[in-house]
Amino acid sequence: MAIISVGTVAFDAIETPFGKRDKVVGGAATYISLSASFFHQPIGLVSVIGDDFDQEMLGKMKQRNINLDGLQIKEGEKSFFWSGKYHYDMNTRDTLDTQLNVLEHFQPVVPEDFLNCDYVMLGNLAPAVQQSVIKQMKSKPKLVVMDTMNFWMDIALDQLKETIAMVDVLSINDEEARQLSGEYSLVTAAKKILAMGLKYLIIKKGEHGALLFDKDQVFFAPALPLEVVMDPTGAGDTFAGGFIGYIASKDDISFDTLKNAIIAGSAMASFTCEKFGPERLLSLTSAEIKERIAEFESLINFDFDINALI
Amino acid sequence: MAIISVGTVAFDAIETPFGKRDKVVGGAATYISLSASFFHQPIGLVSVIGDDFDQEMLGKMKQRNINLDGLQIKEGEKSFFWSGKYHYDMNTRDTLDTQLNVLEHFQPVVPEDFLNCDYVMLGNLAPAVQQSVIKQMKSKPKLVVMDTMNFWMDIALDQLKETIAMVDVLSINDEEARQLSGEYSLVTAAKKILAMGLKYLIIKKGEHGALLFDKDQVFFAPALPLEVVMDPTGAGDTFAGGFIGYIASKDDISFDTLKNAIIAGSAMASFTCEKFGPERLLSLTSAEIKERIAEFESLINFDFDINALI
Repeated sequence: MAIISVGTVAFDAIETPFGKRDKVVGGAATYISLSASFFHQPIGLVSVIGDDFDQEMLGKMKQRNINLDGLQIKEGEKSFFWSGKYHYDMNTRDTLDTQLNVLEHFQPVVPEDFLNCDYVMLGNLAPAVQQSVIKQMKSKPKLVVMDTMNFWMDIALDQLKETIAMVDVLSINDEEARQLSGEYSLVTAAKKILAMGLKYLIIKKGEHGALLFDKDQVFFAPALPLEVVMDPTGAGDTFAGGFIGYIASKDDISFDTLKNAIIAGSAMASFTCEKFGPERLLSLTSAEIKERIAEFESLINFDFDINALI
Repeated sequence: MAIISVGTVAFDAIETPFGKRDKVVGGAATYISLSASFFHQPIGLVSVIGDDFDQEMLGKMKQRNINLDGLQIKEGEKSFFWSGKYHYDMNTRDTLDTQLNVLEHFQPVVPEDFLNCDYVMLGNLAPAVQQSVIKQMKSKPKLVVMDTMNFWMDIALDQLKETIAMVDVLSINDEEARQLSGEYSLVTAAKKILAMGLKYLIIKKGEHGALLFDKDQVFFAPALPLEVVMDPTGAGDTFAGGFIGYIASKDDISFDTLKNAIIAGSAMASFTCEKFGPERLLSLTSAEIKERIAEFESLINFDFDINALI
């Protein structure tokens, strides 16, 4: 197993200006695994669900070579449920309901077969839970990437910082980078956060793209300007999946490979936004991804004539 | 004269989280002309000032081969004055004071020598005033670019649309594109605005970069992530100056040239943000611009391995 994906597998109820769904499959590990599977297979999934979960979706995940040995199924319990409503700008949303259910006492157990894995993608979970996964690994992975959110900065900052020091890459959004560092400038924020013990930092800016930093370099990937953003739920996790999937397929953790992994993640995320839930990922083909990568290239490619300067 | 720059030449009072200046030279035509002069000279400036204006600044503009024959000086009157305060995020600002002074009855008079000019950059002014410049031209310019703002959409929408139909390129920010089109998606907004009679549309997103559209293509230039943004006043006009300057130096109006012109504009704008007013432009060298263009290239350059896909 080269990649393991840890995070929620859940049900979501979503309302956007373009429609409404009362119950779609969601969860960070769902999006991460599906997205990564376009670049590398198999993917080991570590998560928990109740006995109410969608069996058909589990079948579809297995078809994409997602190994579900690490997916705990709690009899008599219900799966994690999240409900949210997006504002008109699609960049902000209100959480309407969160039912932790099986997630409340989730203790991830990494199956024996996954314990020597090279690439670990930790979706947003309590920092203590993320840590417990790292501690279970038998050998040091080549790259551990973690996602998190402002919620943990508010209620578990010390544990979050302790966890950050144990991983290689942190993925957060611009507001979270500002909160975590206390700095408004993202360049200054990045320096402070990298100093917490990271090799790389990703700052996601939603429709405005994503930045990758190491201590000496910065790379920027735009988000593709989309005509229709139907539902951005899972876009960040889909990004993370494309990111870790590309890296695993190249089996390299240099800045240059991570740059391309950011493009892979951005391309994958743009698909997820086109339909509700993971629907678009399930119908996606490699040919479509290749076409979208080419769109990214043409979007930002330029050939500046330095002689135009006086 | 290949380029003329039309717009305000003014005094600004500016407060940002990083400092305060009670009186610096400002105005769209000032920034446009200074910025364009790094790519093409001479630049013909068309504007109006009072007899209170800064003579030393006029000298510095002449040194950069900016022809001031079209600059009216109104004896006994005061120059246009604007005062604003930036919020902590530097993307939004409050106008504290606007004193139109000489601008109230400004009737631009394009000097004889400027009347066959190829490239016209119309800074933000009343649409009727912008129109009057176009109507004075003896031969049709190769490219007319206009900047505008939401204010004219609120109070003079019909005249604004009439003026838009007379130019080739419109430059506005994302909120203005949404207001003008009534569309939230910038891609859909761009289609509607292009249909108003434009060849190209630029949508500026401040610290999030800029988009260039024609009816078939889109190009995105990031803004350089800056450690310190001292004062963004004039950044949009500096962008416009670099844009028109690059185009004039190449004497070509293809989409490919305009893409590079957007990069030129973005690079120039990043300098203006580093200091108050046009201070940074006055000390700038071509070598520094070349270095910054190289930073843009490294910021977004990637080499995706399509074989990473399964």
